[in-house]
Amino acid sequence: MTGGAVTAAKAGVVGGGVIGGGWAARFLLHGWNVTVFDPDPDVQQQLQAVLDHARLALPALADTPMPAEGTLRFAKSLGEAVDGASWVQESVPEDLSLKHRVLAGIDSQATASAIIGSSTSGFRPGELQHITEGPVRILVAHPFNPVYILPLVEVVGGDALYRETLERACTVLTSIGMKPVVVRNEIDAHIADRLLESVWREALWLINDDIATTEEIDDVIRYGFGLRWAQMGLFDTYRLAGGEAGMAHFIQQFGPALQWPWSKLTDVPALTEALVQKIAAQSDAQSGHLSVRELERIRDRNLVGMLRSLKERNWGAGALLNEHDRRLAARLTGPAALDADSNGALRLLDICVLPGWIDYNGHMTEYRYTQVFSDASDRLLQMLGMDAEYVASGRSYYTAETHVMHLGEAAVDQALYASSQVLLADTKRLHVFYRLCTAEDDRLLATGESMYLHVDRASGRVCAASDKIVANAGALAAAHANLPRPATAGRRVGERKTE
Amino acid sequence: MTGGAVTAAKAGVVGGGVIGGGWAARFLLHGWNVTVFDPDPDVQQQLQAVLDHARLALPALADTPMPAEGTLRFAKSLGEAVDGASWVQESVPEDLSLKHRVLAGIDSQATASAIIGSSTSGFRPGELQHITEGPVRILVAHPFNPVYILPLVEVVGGDALYRETLERACTVLTSIGMKPVVVRNEIDAHIADRLLESVWREALWLINDDIATTEEIDDVIRYGFGLRWAQMGLFDTYRLAGGEAGMAHFIQQFGPALQWPWSKLTDVPALTEALVQKIAAQSDAQSGHLSVRELERIRDRNLVGMLRSLKERNWGAGALLNEHDRRLAARLTGPAALDADSNGALRLLDICVLPGWIDYNGHMTEYRYTQVFSDASDRLLQMLGMDAEYVASGRSYYTAETHVMHLGEAAVDQALYASSQVLLADTKRLHVFYRLCTAEDDRLLATGESMYLHVDRASGRVCAASDKIVANAGALAAAHANLPRPATAGRRVGERKTE
Repeated sequence: MTGGAVTAAKAGVVGGGVIGGGWAARFLLHGWNVTVFDPDPDVQQQLQAVLDHARLALPALADTPMPAEGTLRFAKSLGEAVDGASWVQESVPEDLSLKHRVLAGIDSQATASAIIGSSTSGFRPGELQHITEGPVRILVAHPFNPVYILPLVEVVGGDALYRETLERACTVLTSIGMKPVVVRNEIDAHIADRLLESVWREALWLINDDIATTEEIDDVIRYGFGLRWAQMGLFDTYRLAGGEAGMAHFIQQFGPALQWPWSKLTDVPALTEALVQKIAAQSDAQSGHLSVRELERIRDRNLVGMLRSLKERNWGAGALLNEHDRRLAARLTGPAALDADSNGALRLLDICVLPGWIDYNGHMTEYRYTQVFSDASDRLLQMLGMDAEYVASGRSYYTAETHVMHLGEAAVDQALYASSQVLLADTKRLHVFYRLCTAEDDRLLATGESMYLHVDRASGRVCAASDKIVANAGALAAAHANLPRPATAGRRVGERKTE
Repeated sequence: MTGGAVTAAKAGVVGGGVIGGGWAARFLLHGWNVTVFDPDPDVQQQLQAVLDHARLALPALADTPMPAEGTLRFAKSLGEAVDGASWVQESVPEDLSLKHRVLAGIDSQATASAIIGSSTSGFRPGELQHITEGPVRILVAHPFNPVYILPLVEVVGGDALYRETLERACTVLTSIGMKPVVVRNEIDAHIADRLLESVWREALWLINDDIATTEEIDDVIRYGFGLRWAQMGLFDTYRLAGGEAGMAHFIQQFGPALQWPWSKLTDVPALTEALVQKIAAQSDAQSGHLSVRELERIRDRNLVGMLRSLKERNWGAGALLNEHDRRLAARLTGPAALDADSNGALRLLDICVLPGWIDYNGHMTEYRYTQVFSDASDRLLQMLGMDAEYVASGRSYYTAETHVMHLGEAAVDQALYASSQVLLADTKRLHVFYRLCTAEDDRLLATGESMYLHVDRASGRVCAASDKIVANAGALAAAHANLPRPATAGRRVGERKTE
């Protein structure tokens, strides 16, 4: 399938609830034209709400232009929805006879080459495919809410489906940003919902027996193992628990717990040597190319990144970290400790170069330097008194211009710090010089020079900052006036170094 | 307990493996002095490895200075480790008679006011407390690996522990950044490990029965529900599945699945009306203050943030998004056509401002301007003949310096384009001026000026580019020599506009 054909394609979406609406949004935002059929009179309004959410979320995940959004239409009949569609997705309620009726209708009216996906979370393809004649083209494509964000889709073809159809389905799903996991042996509820159902049953027992509330159960997940699972899942996480001794060791060590009457759900497979070795071999194939130390570093880096993003959103474990910051800050006597770096300037930010920051030259890419200096400026402004409340009051500093000089290269995982020297501060302007250095040996990698203007956000006009900020900035500028003026401050692009 | 007392306190850590080491790191990085006792001859080396990880991770979560790190000592005896400690944490292997022996030793030698926490994942406090005489001060404080990052700690006091001791324990745990979840009714394995164990058993069945591999199971978690759980857990996630109809509706709708023979673990509580109402009431108490729409927006924002952080780390669902970006970019038609913009310069890049590019001022954030100019430079260099093969041959252009001027603001979804004007090109240097304009009305939002140097990548030395590139760049510079020189080219930061 060519790129052109994908973007010009039409998807028929049958059932326009939360799941069907999510499918519609994902197709639309990838340039497909979508026609939805759902007899519910509220379908347009519901789908609009899903689409509003999706437009804010899916493009925010891309760093490259998305295709132009496709056209959304609502059909008056099933036939109209599937007419000319190269993909038809069924998302009607989980009722087998209803699914049979709808899928038979789709199959009889869809174009010969169309693929028909069912969003069923529980039924096997074998339970759905027998209703059609001719070559089988119905498969399970089970997505996860919110469909427009979560990439997972379980694809179950069953024995009756041609491999070529399965591959074509995966190509289409990949083209709209999904991660097809092909379930090789069809079972009730596929894979994910088996796991979800087991937790759900145990959770119901915990509530039934008054051990925990819904909130306590959510807390143990979102402050604990949920964070691990979001980036490594179950087995890679336990691989780390096994340590250098490896996966077989871990299973043998923790295996006896299977025999303990912990759970109300105690039917367990016999932990034979063969099963232990099978799991260990699969785990080695999955992650044996990484040492436990490397995997631990990756896990920690992922956790820090996710926690920091939750912190920015002040939610869950991130909200807890914000509270903890306030506790730590309350402990400090007076304003934030003004650490001096080797130049006597203000050390603002300690970072580690992330893998996603590396460009094709193998070094930290250009714009990440500006990002680091910009993050440092946020710290500086905070320190001077520009907090969220101040910004909400309609005032802020805007960056007028920035000059960055690259003097060295930063490699992945390298520890760096940014420091600042205030060159000038008056009521409206703040002129700051930054240095980015290696933490290990204070080697200077880059300098930044920025001019910030204090503005009234509503009018966009430059205006005076609050007395408190002006006083703080002035004090800092006065202290920094004793430092030598940086050699490259005031430099023009292309100026010779000897000038 | 005052802040001062906390920072001066001593923790005794008994058992220095992954869990004990994690406790030691968390206490140390919060300013506690820590003494570790573990007869394992490798304990110092193992603990150093955990501490190395922790030093990179825990401070990276704080936006306020951490306390000065405490002192780490290794004790030769249990008595030396617990002497003077206000908190003693036991993390020896999960063997009841061993735990009894160690806890009795700790209890007999620790100061009267000390609290003794056990990291046990399976035993109830009632199974541990009876070994001591006098007032009970042993409790379960069950943490999650990596202990220095994940905030969750399950605190189980049992009936014998004074409420005051429990509260004092929670205060200490909170002061080192943890989230104590108090388990009110003691059961084997507390709460989290009950849930983990249920998933573990189901996962073992899936592997045993050849339904899925370890990697497929990890994939369905980390590309799917793991991301939901990291920020909302189980019940808030299902609250959204119930939609506006609420939690009772969701449970009644999905309840019948409990009776289906999906799982090998099918002992389930009777889903009585009383249990349904209990869950619904608890869920309302937990999240009823937020509408479903609000909760959906929060969930989406969290997911986008976590996925973007995984994208920067090129891991899991984030790595998938990077692949998807490359697919989307490949779809763009060939090398940019040589469109001339209104200044006669070279139109290189058309973009749309993404939601994730917006800062707290509500505009496209500073470093994204550098990113757009950098992306434009990649197109320009490609056009001049610097392709992947050329870079692989060991030569490339590096950015020496960049000056960006901000003249207007860009809003989310706004269509912009970047154009370039080559100011100078010789065998080694390329001096380029960029403009970023609105697509709708050619309004100039920012200018960029960059100097690129052609380097030999192995030595990092400046050298001549290939004849082809030099010829192409020269031709472009000659054509652009006829264009007026940009007013802000050669500008220094802070130069007055009238200069």
